[in-house]
Amino acid sequence: METASIHSENEVTQSALVISAEQLLKHWQGHRGVTRKTIEAFPEDKLYNYSVGGMRPFATLVMEMLGMAVPGVKGVITGEWENPGSSFSSPAPPTKKELLALWDETTEKLDELWPQIPPHRFQEVDLAFGVYKAPMHFVIFYWIDNEIHHRGQGYVYLRSLGIEPPAFWDRG
Amino acid sequence: METASIHSENEVTQSALVISAEQLLKHWQGHRGVTRKTIEAFPEDKLYNYSVGGMRPFATLVMEMLGMAVPGVKGVITGEWENPGSSFSSPAPPTKKELLALWDETTEKLDELWPQIPPHRFQEVDLAFGVYKAPMHFVIFYWIDNEIHHRGQGYVYLRSLGIEPPAFWDRG
Repeated sequence: METASIHSENEVTQSALVISAEQLLKHWQGHRGVTRKTIEAFPEDKLYNYSVGGMRPFATLVMEMLGMAVPGVKGVITGEWENPGSSFSSPAPPTKKELLALWDETTEKLDELWPQIPPHRFQEVDLAFGVYKAPMHFVIFYWIDNEIHHRGQGYVYLRSLGIEPPAFWDRG
Repeated sequence: METASIHSENEVTQSALVISAEQLLKHWQGHRGVTRKTIEAFPEDKLYNYSVGGMRPFATLVMEMLGMAVPGVKGVITGEWENPGSSFSSPAPPTKKELLALWDETTEKLDELWPQIPPHRFQEVDLAFGVYKAPMHFVIFYWIDNEIHHRGQGYVYLRSLGIEPPAFWDRG
């Protein structure tokens, strides 16, 4: 009986686990916390008007992140995709305070939506936003990685303004 | 019998799977391919001497990525960590050709080492490099995310030099 319990289905699942769905949400929200601090670090005008090398200002990059997050997770849950093929770039609200409020709203919605993802969807291939054909885990990591990528660019904008960015490793 | 096979241990593992170990390696190597193209996009002198906002040149950031990759995965496999507490910053080889050769060597070694990770290690907490206490999956994602973060900075360096970076989404 002891042997049977050691080799139970749960044990097998556990031993092969790389990252659980709950851990992946925590991973993303941890990164999102760093991105929130990055938004906060920008002087209000520079958030909207400043960039390096002709790139997009940080507020525009933030709107792209937000455009992927909740609509994306809704698509993962339901298989139905809002704004198919859209460029994820709604105009940013006009103040940093409002942008942060939008950020926090997404944080709450992600926590609420995430547990509704049917477990099989992470490995299921679907056409994300009607355009990107891939297993859903690949697409979810794409959204997270895209945020890390653009936040790294925001760090350069901040450094070039003489402002210290938040610690990359501090996801608390 | 059919019902039993549907509910086999493998099926249970499958349905709860977010990302497999093999998929995670492919994820990392896909990103590493984009980083390789980013190295290639730099004019040789700019790789070593150029940055924005007083940050480190891209070759130095690349050496940090390399310093985490193979030594890190060896630590995940064995529980023994090279250079504990080191800053991951060996000096870069003096030419882009040699830096790319070092990159390719790491690519091969990662493919060779990765399947040797005992599956339970992804969820096991260990002191990575003798300093960072976390489950190994968290630490592995840290190395990948750190690469994405710094590569995003390299994109700004390139743009500010008037050079088009490689497509972020092209991991082929």
